[in-house]
Amino acid sequence: MRIRELYLVTSNRHKLVEASNVLREYGIELKPLNVAKVEVQSESLEEVALTAARLAFLSVGKPLVVEDAGLFIEALGGFPGPYSSYVYKKIGVKGILKLMEGVEDRRACFRSAAALALPGMERVFVGEVCGFIARESRGSGGFGFDPIFIPEGESRTFAEMSVEEKNRYSHRAKAFRRLAEFLSNLREAG
Amino acid sequence: MRIRELYLVTSNRHKLVEASNVLREYGIELKPLNVAKVEVQSESLEEVALTAARLAFLSVGKPLVVEDAGLFIEALGGFPGPYSSYVYKKIGVKGILKLMEGVEDRRACFRSAAALALPGMERVFVGEVCGFIARESRGSGGFGFDPIFIPEGESRTFAEMSVEEKNRYSHRAKAFRRLAEFLSNLREAG
Repeated sequence: MRIRELYLVTSNRHKLVEASNVLREYGIELKPLNVAKVEVQSESLEEVALTAARLAFLSVGKPLVVEDAGLFIEALGGFPGPYSSYVYKKIGVKGILKLMEGVEDRRACFRSAAALALPGMERVFVGEVCGFIARESRGSGGFGFDPIFIPEGESRTFAEMSVEEKNRYSHRAKAFRRLAEFLSNLREAG
Repeated sequence: MRIRELYLVTSNRHKLVEASNVLREYGIELKPLNVAKVEVQSESLEEVALTAARLAFLSVGKPLVVEDAGLFIEALGGFPGPYSSYVYKKIGVKGILKLMEGVEDRRACFRSAAALALPGMERVFVGEVCGFIARESRGSGGFGFDPIFIPEGESRTFAEMSVEEKNRYSHRAKAFRRLAEFLSNLREAG
């Protein structure tokens, strides 16, 4: 089986750009697919992504990926986690900074789960990047909580980096790289 | 059709007590049913409750109710809304009070959606109570965000009231009263 084209179920342009930059390196073209994304409430990103991929595949029958990501803040018990996009929309970067006021433990990880659905096969690939919540919002690149996340070993936030730089660290890039490697091995096998 | 027994899909003892107190007045016994509750991510409580009820009914085939509730805070764009139990677990009453520090507009509503699934029929009933977010946590009754919610016209929080007092105002009691009235009319019709 040789997959050269894959659909990403998303309406998030930023996600598409990040993920397609990675897959292009492996000769795979990623196209947006705007179908309903059924997301279950779960603290497991893998479960959210896999259920959504399974249902989207049942509905369209094309090889596709659903990616779900979240910011897990240590001092907040993993909040906002799988609900990061809802929390971002409602209380934003400012709300998270307010919750983190006076909190010394700034550790946090971004996690990504990319669920792949092919005819007769499904797999989830995960990626993670850990670092710290900044004391204030910085930078204008990226999206979501990027302006307050500083990866380990860096002094800049994700929003202060170019897409290429961010992809060197990014949870999403890691998940998609694992997915691409899996697809490359499938090709060799078949 | 005469419904004397109904199952409530929940593992929350408080919910069961509140709801069964209401239904008992209408001669309906509410029993707990501990099956998987599939909750979709949605900003609509009605959709969350209805989907969960439909799937639970498909799995057990007994007349049942799924209730979903949330606290919608005006100044936070409706946060935490349908994700109230997750948010409660992660950042609690303290987190909400921190987000509301220095915020003058304290308006908030508790909303409840009770989805009923019977053979060949499904309905959602909603209830709402509006009021204000307290400046500090008070009282030890109730559960969740009850210690910081003061219903309009009161000076006490929900957690400072008995179950009976709270049920006079409660969003959940209102939704279950509408559900009970619907069932009573069904009996008369059939």
